[in-house]
Amino acid sequence: MSDLFEFIENGSPTSVPGFKASGVVAGFKRSGAPDFALLYSDTPADAAGVFTTCRFAAAPVRYCRELLSRGAKLRAVVINSGIANACTGKPGLEAARKTAALAAAKLGVGPDQVAVASTGRIGTQMNMDIIARGLELAVPALSSDGGNDASRAIMTTDTVPKAAAVKVKIGGAAVTIGAMTKGAGMINPGLAGLHATMLCFITTDASVDCALLAEMLEENAQNSFNRITVDGDMSTNDTVLLLANGASGVVIRKGSAEAEVFKEALLAVMKNLARRMVKDGEGSTKLVTIEVVNARSTADAKLAAESVANSLLCKTAWFGNDPNWGRIAAALGYSGAVFDPDKCDISIDGLPVMTQGGDAGTPESAAVEKVKKSEFTIRCDFHDGNFDYWVWSSDVSYDYVKINADYHT
Amino acid sequence: MSDLFEFIENGSPTSVPGFKASGVVAGFKRSGAPDFALLYSDTPADAAGVFTTCRFAAAPVRYCRELLSRGAKLRAVVINSGIANACTGKPGLEAARKTAALAAAKLGVGPDQVAVASTGRIGTQMNMDIIARGLELAVPALSSDGGNDASRAIMTTDTVPKAAAVKVKIGGAAVTIGAMTKGAGMINPGLAGLHATMLCFITTDASVDCALLAEMLEENAQNSFNRITVDGDMSTNDTVLLLANGASGVVIRKGSAEAEVFKEALLAVMKNLARRMVKDGEGSTKLVTIEVVNARSTADAKLAAESVANSLLCKTAWFGNDPNWGRIAAALGYSGAVFDPDKCDISIDGLPVMTQGGDAGTPESAAVEKVKKSEFTIRCDFHDGNFDYWVWSSDVSYDYVKINADYHT
Repeated sequence: MSDLFEFIENGSPTSVPGFKASGVVAGFKRSGAPDFALLYSDTPADAAGVFTTCRFAAAPVRYCRELLSRGAKLRAVVINSGIANACTGKPGLEAARKTAALAAAKLGVGPDQVAVASTGRIGTQMNMDIIARGLELAVPALSSDGGNDASRAIMTTDTVPKAAAVKVKIGGAAVTIGAMTKGAGMINPGLAGLHATMLCFITTDASVDCALLAEMLEENAQNSFNRITVDGDMSTNDTVLLLANGASGVVIRKGSAEAEVFKEALLAVMKNLARRMVKDGEGSTKLVTIEVVNARSTADAKLAAESVANSLLCKTAWFGNDPNWGRIAAALGYSGAVFDPDKCDISIDGLPVMTQGGDAGTPESAAVEKVKKSEFTIRCDFHDGNFDYWVWSSDVSYDYVKINADYHT
Repeated sequence: MSDLFEFIENGSPTSVPGFKASGVVAGFKRSGAPDFALLYSDTPADAAGVFTTCRFAAAPVRYCRELLSRGAKLRAVVINSGIANACTGKPGLEAARKTAALAAAKLGVGPDQVAVASTGRIGTQMNMDIIARGLELAVPALSSDGGNDASRAIMTTDTVPKAAAVKVKIGGAAVTIGAMTKGAGMINPGLAGLHATMLCFITTDASVDCALLAEMLEENAQNSFNRITVDGDMSTNDTVLLLANGASGVVIRKGSAEAEVFKEALLAVMKNLARRMVKDGEGSTKLVTIEVVNARSTADAKLAAESVANSLLCKTAWFGNDPNWGRIAAALGYSGAVFDPDKCDISIDGLPVMTQGGDAGTPESAAVEKVKKSEFTIRCDFHDGNFDYWVWSSDVSYDYVKINADYHT
């Protein structure tokens, strides 16, 4: 289906007609790096969101959930990096509301048309002076090619900005989907819902009603952002927002062939960004795909794959170029997945390292060559059923420890 | 109850009358360090064990489980470090059996009176020549003060040997309980059963039947070894064996006051060693006690405490002397435990850092002083019920990564 869409060079949320964005230095970050972004739609956009399932959901998450539950149409999203506005109680919620109201006033839109997202240190109250300064600068800076500036302003420990866009032909017309994301640590799938410490803002000029938008976003999140893990932690602030302004005139209806194509293109953008988040994971030097195949159930395959993906012993072994299939077997074994260990095979990039629960007899040097690569796939075949699952993981390096012992989020 | 027992200086399994031990250099370790231990009872001892719940249980674990299920009385335990004999299929099981048989022949005891335990690299077949050499040296070296030698021979990445013993007065007579343990990584509680990557061998001269022995060992393991976590991984080889030779003449009967005292003293030895395992955790610089109190159920308290204890973000923050209660709150929040975030308080060594889900207003410098210490307690009060749980955790340092990226277990 990939001949139906193509990635746009330097694509971003503003690759989509009708959207503007900006990224400015408001003053949250001591480094003086951009830390305030604004995303703006010329017309009211249908919207959907998926959020952290953490019980300590941050104030902007609570605010957005409530906004979307009312079926709000959005004109703008205000994003700051530096203060998470999480564990901030009622004053925090008030700050999120006030941020939306200030932005609405400056932009001349309704206060219920503005979403808010934050990332940064937990437990600190929002600094409204910096928010005001951010808006002062970001509103006049809005530009139809500002998406990449915005993608830089939402970074925290990210080392590179992450944005993408695809153009997809639907029923003869062109639809664009653009997106930007941040997230490099506190990234984990593994529970119900979305569990990556991340912010992601997706735009499209397709016309899609809220319910269908939400359905497609949730299902795609399960197959992209929910397949990645960096450290097994989950954030208080995870937010994915999808805005559809309808500017292309292409209407996507539930159950149609067009909906399938749109969803596929949307997934391509989300997977592209998910993959880049793992590659830019804190201290990460490798992208490791874990596939568990022929399990008794999807739940078993998922438990097993995520257990390997989150095993600190596996992740440090990969960093050390150590294939160490014994640690992989151990992680499968304690995952809680039901399978027969005596039937289990493990291969690394096609090279068998364990067969039927024992040493495959492959020379270790050959396996070392595989795990030395910056990307490789570990395939665990249970030969015990018909259900598969996969996740993307990273290694854990000295730099991971350095970043997280030094960076006071 | 602690006035009923006292720790013996330099205590070990051979502090208990009727037990001998030795630790020798058989040749498993390239470093030339001791790597083979033998524990011997002058008379047949009642025995109980708890083992890993990993599906890839190592050959010696499978062997011992089968042995104990037949109610075997033990005369000896053979332990090697360097090869785990895990994921080794039928040849591995045969090697475990042969090791027991060889030892039995050398010691002049029945082959069904010898247990076996291994730790080291997974996936490598046992080297029976080295086992034979080990027995050749270890049998004549058996000594009634060899417990500390044995405790050194079972070490892998441990930096210090770990042994202990207590003397306890029961009904006017003296009973001794001795133990040694190894384990520094691959340590995790969190599932049913015992989940610390560890070997532990406990001796006593009390007379306790197998069933009561098993009951006490399992319950105490839940409150000691199953309360510790270093890296969240679980081993294929976890083994705790308890041997009771009855030499003291003191008979412990189920439901008696004597049984309570014995169990309490046994727990003291097990907790002493559990604590020292965390302190000697790979690269560990701190022992952190996580208490979750006033939860809706023990299950909720356990989920929450273990989530904090295993959070890589919390563990790296502690290493960096960063109190970072926001990361603690996040880990509680994504744990799956049900609680009201707006009622949750967090304190560090009695210093409130979060109250009712928000900043307690304590100066950060005061909290930094707390987490700078080599031991501190994080108390999370849900104010939501009457159930508590606690675990011991460690921090994650550069050295953890170094040890596990370099050491090819």
